[in-house]
Amino acid sequence: MDREIEKRARQFVESLPHARSLAMKVEQITEGQAIMRMPYDARLVGDPSTGVIFGGAVSALLDTCAGLSVFVHPDARTAMATLDLRIDYMRAATPGQDIRAHAICYHVTQNVAFVRATASDDDTDNIVASAAGAFSLDFEKGPRV
Amino acid sequence: MDREIEKRARQFVESLPHARSLAMKVEQITEGQAIMRMPYDARLVGDPSTGVIFGGAVSALLDTCAGLSVFVHPDARTAMATLDLRIDYMRAATPGQDIRAHAICYHVTQNVAFVRATASDDDTDNIVASAAGAFSLDFEKGPRV
Amino acid sequence: MDREIEKRARQFVESLPHARSLAMKVEQITEGQAIMRMPYDARLVGDPSTGVIFGGAVSALLDTCAGLSVFVHPDARTAMATLDLRIDYMRAATPGQDIRAHAICYHVTQNVAFVRATASDDDTDNIVASAAGAFSLDFEKGPRV
Amino acid sequence: MDREIEKRARQFVESLPHARSLAMKVEQITEGQAIMRMPYDARLVGDPSTGVIFGGAVSALLDTCAGLSVFVHPDARTAMATLDLRIDYMRAATPGQDIRAHAICYHVTQNVAFVRATASDDDTDNIVASAAGAFSLDFEKGPRV
Repeated sequence: MDREIEKRARQFVESLPHARSLAMKVEQITEGQAIMRMPYDARLVGDPSTGVIFGGAVSALLDTCAGLSVFVHPDARTAMATLDLRIDYMRAATPGQDIRAHAICYHVTQNVAFVRATASDDDTDNIVASAAGAFSLDFEKGPRV
Repeated sequence: MDREIEKRARQFVESLPHARSLAMKVEQITEGQAIMRMPYDARLVGDPSTGVIFGGAVSALLDTCAGLSVFVHPDARTAMATLDLRIDYMRAATPGQDIRAHAICYHVTQNVAFVRATASDDDTDNIVASAAGAFSLDFEKGPRV
Repeated sequence: MDREIEKRARQFVESLPHARSLAMKVEQITEGQAIMRMPYDARLVGDPSTGVIFGGAVSALLDTCAGLSVFVHPDARTAMATLDLRIDYMRAATPGQDIRAHAICYHVTQNVAFVRATASDDDTDNIVASAAGAFSLDFEKGPRV
Repeated sequence: MDREIEKRARQFVESLPHARSLAMKVEQITEGQAIMRMPYDARLVGDPSTGVIFGGAVSALLDTCAGLSVFVHPDARTAMATLDLRIDYMRAATPGQDIRAHAICYHVTQNVAFVRATASDDDTDNIVASAAGAFSLDFEKGPRV
């Protein structure tokens, strides 16, 4: 994939306020795919008795990574908005470990892009959460994510 | 509903790190229902060109409010974990306005609680997002949310 | 709403092979809303030991009724395809009772219509299932549902 | 996997009224996985102008196949009920072609089993639909699917 597009996509996503706030980093981009990482952070804890991260933080990473996979899909690459997103939580993420998300934009129609994504901690064989979503594409606007 | 339960539920949710980080506040609690509010915050912006809040922040509020509605349902009131959550985004929230979520725990089985929730900004006639989710209940643990 | 549109919508839906096969009937149509009924049928049973209808039959009714609510929405009224649909099953439908679905197309964007729907049996206070879905609109085609 | 369990699972599913009505066949069973097939049938058509099968029929196959994958998972193998199911439709199935579903029960907790599934026609490189669902397990009942 074009290095220039990759670089711009990376800079764009990492500069988004909500992504900066959660310290999300882009690890890898290929056509229609993205891998992002979010470090463990005490501010994200949803269950103080265990230190487990709030599922919504995992969801935010999945949503952002999913949007990035649409943006780097050769048929999309434009402004978009999440239409809907379903997250399935398989297990609690292990406290202290980073969360990594992997998203694949597997289908693009004229107006809508479909994405699947998974999130894991260090135990990559047992994913923490999985996501399925639809994004609307707006070719009249510039790139959003 | 018992004022003591209401008070504890409110304190518990508002003390959660992720909820504090997003400045979420509980507005109202009744049996199996909750209303929460999250102020507009530049750190939550998902689209810097418009100032629109990242959908994932709305989703986090809906998730938290949904969990609270389970916790204050007379048949649940125990530790829980989000099994799955689907968010439908109807429109962008208006920049500068608070987001308010209203969740209803409408059905509780032996192990699972079902919730519906909506989020709106000042234009309460046109909701921003709607959610449907399932939460697992663990009666062997203490309260989580 | 225009009686002619209502009549055509009703005839169209009831003539669809899959709807005829499940004996689905349109009960009521208003702008952006539809109520449909499906009689209990032994062929639809998913659990022979109890006679409970297969959840997928309830889902088929919800999907069809949702599509109809889009078709009778003043801003849609065109060919459509289900983009995604989430069904939450609250309880088993009571054997021997009809299933009735009520769908509301509550939001229409340029290309996508959002719908919520519920299904119940004779105990209308306790719904059997609820649905949330997104339909793509294709204004270049004629009406589909 | 035990041939006897495989045989019983196959017979059980294929004898279900709704599965018989749609002529669903079990093609392959392994631990926590199932492949099922449903022949093209004019009664299932959702769009008479094109002969395309109603999405709800694809959904019914995915739901049934998903339930079977739970039933043949070594940690489940018991009565179950669909808690929720999300179907994403990628494209219309090609008229005249069989639909084949592949389901994987990828996670089982004490009370809930999570499943992912896909459906395709003869063009197996471009799936027709994908599904994610949660099933409740009831170890006090006998096998349902």
